[in-house]
Amino acid sequence: MNKTAEILERVRREKPLVHHITNWVTIYDCANIVRAVGALPVMAHAEEEVEEMTGIASSLVLNMGTLTGRLIESMKIAGKAANAKKIPVILDAVGVGATRFRDEKAIELIREMHVDIIKGNCSEIARLAGIEVFTKGVESTKVEGDLKAIAQQLARSRKATVVITGKEDIIAGKDALYICRNGHSMMGNIVGTGCMAASMAGAFAAEEKDYARAAAAAMSVFGIAGEIAAEKAFGPGTFKERFYDAIYNMAASDIEKLEKLEEHANES
Amino acid sequence: MNKTAEILERVRREKPLVHHITNWVTIYDCANIVRAVGALPVMAHAEEEVEEMTGIASSLVLNMGTLTGRLIESMKIAGKAANAKKIPVILDAVGVGATRFRDEKAIELIREMHVDIIKGNCSEIARLAGIEVFTKGVESTKVEGDLKAIAQQLARSRKATVVITGKEDIIAGKDALYICRNGHSMMGNIVGTGCMAASMAGAFAAEEKDYARAAAAAMSVFGIAGEIAAEKAFGPGTFKERFYDAIYNMAASDIEKLEKLEEHANES
Amino acid sequence: MNKTAEILERVRREKPLVHHITNWVTIYDCANIVRAVGALPVMAHAEEEVEEMTGIASSLVLNMGTLTGRLIESMKIAGKAANAKKIPVILDAVGVGATRFRDEKAIELIREMHVDIIKGNCSEIARLAGIEVFTKGVESTKVEGDLKAIAQQLARSRKATVVITGKEDIIAGKDALYICRNGHSMMGNIVGTGCMAASMAGAFAAEEKDYARAAAAAMSVFGIAGEIAAEKAFGPGTFKERFYDAIYNMAASDIEKLEKLEEHANES
Repeated sequence: MNKTAEILERVRREKPLVHHITNWVTIYDCANIVRAVGALPVMAHAEEEVEEMTGIASSLVLNMGTLTGRLIESMKIAGKAANAKKIPVILDAVGVGATRFRDEKAIELIREMHVDIIKGNCSEIARLAGIEVFTKGVESTKVEGDLKAIAQQLARSRKATVVITGKEDIIAGKDALYICRNGHSMMGNIVGTGCMAASMAGAFAAEEKDYARAAAAAMSVFGIAGEIAAEKAFGPGTFKERFYDAIYNMAASDIEKLEKLEEHANES
Repeated sequence: MNKTAEILERVRREKPLVHHITNWVTIYDCANIVRAVGALPVMAHAEEEVEEMTGIASSLVLNMGTLTGRLIESMKIAGKAANAKKIPVILDAVGVGATRFRDEKAIELIREMHVDIIKGNCSEIARLAGIEVFTKGVESTKVEGDLKAIAQQLARSRKATVVITGKEDIIAGKDALYICRNGHSMMGNIVGTGCMAASMAGAFAAEEKDYARAAAAAMSVFGIAGEIAAEKAFGPGTFKERFYDAIYNMAASDIEKLEKLEEHANES
Repeated sequence: MNKTAEILERVRREKPLVHHITNWVTIYDCANIVRAVGALPVMAHAEEEVEEMTGIASSLVLNMGTLTGRLIESMKIAGKAANAKKIPVILDAVGVGATRFRDEKAIELIREMHVDIIKGNCSEIARLAGIEVFTKGVESTKVEGDLKAIAQQLARSRKATVVITGKEDIIAGKDALYICRNGHSMMGNIVGTGCMAASMAGAFAAEEKDYARAAAAAMSVFGIAGEIAAEKAFGPGTFKERFYDAIYNMAASDIEKLEKLEEHANES
């Protein structure tokens, strides 16, 4: 069994509780993908309970998709509780680069807590790295420059793992840079794949302390499931259902056969 | 036609309006299952309109999944309106046992209105019955003791029907105790089955004044649909869609052939 | 290629950004249908960012399904920004006729901004037109009188395109009245078709300045997709997935073969 399959097996065996403070568009998908991969999701955002809920969780996923001022406050409380408990915090920087409000709140979150995995599409991550770039709502736009270098720079400056999702996923950690080439174009035709990817990273990071390796494994399993689902889909509707099936049924042998994950030493 | 099928037929014929104040994770599922079974869902939570919306409804479902202080206030207004109008109130005690905030708010709801059907998994209901037990987010944990006795005790003390969902569903009413053994393990692999079960109970209680019998019928139809759907599913994604189909297509003959419902006199 | 197919092609080519302030029940469906038809959805409701988000969008969809006072305020800010930028505003008057709060807030929205397309079922639109009629939650009730005349009257008084969805969709613009007879009864067995129709209209109006024609094209494509999906569905669950597939795969030849759209001069 390879490393990715081994982490997946741990997730299924340990069933970590993944606490989310997330958006109202894909909240069901975030919960359901965590359940499909074998972990347990919980979504709770009231200021009165996020600290306690984080206290029983194994990781915390913060997703800015439909942020409000109050949700950000709940995220800060939960994030500090997660830091104190030393469980991983995953930030999905949805829509950063689209409005000043998102830019400011994302920076606030990163400053006021330690985020372990920062995830976004290329323009979201570029914006967080300080580059003047525009995100079209929640859709990435073309970014000039070397995405790997941008990910590595942000990873260094924030002492975090940085994940850029796209045709190839880039995962930059302290010691290693991973490139994942799995996935299928149909994944871009449904809403929610980006959010689900962050939730998957939350489930995997709960069980693997090398967060870059955990995120790389999550992206691999996610992309492989997309490839398997696409074979049986007639469009985005049937694809979505088959994608959940593929995550649930994924075998170590599927991963070993299909994974396209490169590991590079992080020489930057 | 047996009793369960007869209640289902009434729901389909009368199309009761089931008002929900519910959570943001499974709100679509709650609405959709009510529609699939033949009733009409409405979800509205603004303090300004919940009283009036309850006034045109035939039952009220309160679900604590993503509670906030303000939602709880709206639930209280709606609950009192439902009590005044004598339509059934169903409480889904999601996540009770996970945080103090949930414990307190659930107790507040039960004290400040009459709840007709209290529904939860075994640790949620045990916590409401005053037992020191822990819920892992929204997932049940093992409860020591006789679940039937716990349900009956809470039913007596709150003068309510109590539903514990699980491998076997326990429904404790004033006069009778029902055990429903329908269902399929795949139902635990998707998010939202618990919430949908409460919404089903809401639709059935709108048309059957014996609320324990109504809840038992709802659990039966729900479990049977799970069995039918599992036969045609390749995983949780395809299962979910087939589950809606099975609810929508359920015939009296399916119920008569597959129902595993025991009725016991409530001798406690 | 006929006019409807031509507008659809433009949507797919230009990928307009459709900003939504919408409800928590069908928010995922609204986003996903926009993506499936080839446009880009964004959902953002914080007062701090709705003006800026509208500023980068090509149309704005306001949906009252789970309105609150604060959401209405965000809708007003976004609506005024859309008016200033001259992008189309689509209002889905969900549940108008069910509570006074909805009636009042819908009127406020229409008065405080220019709405370009007002969409609802027959009792929602009749209520907006000043007729004493009742909506059963979010379900239409029978309306006495000529629906076409009601749509035309509201269109004139509000200088807007008015869409009444139902067994036949009525689209009343300044110069033309369209009747769309596509669709399938299964569409009424799932939650969210009404909301998705408004979002489709938002995507089409972003690319066709004759908003009545844009809305007619959206209703046509929507109804045709329902017919195609129903052929491969076993119930509402499988129907829903096939519906997304049908929207995504719709070819100009499907539209030319199946479209049942009548155009009448608006002689009222």
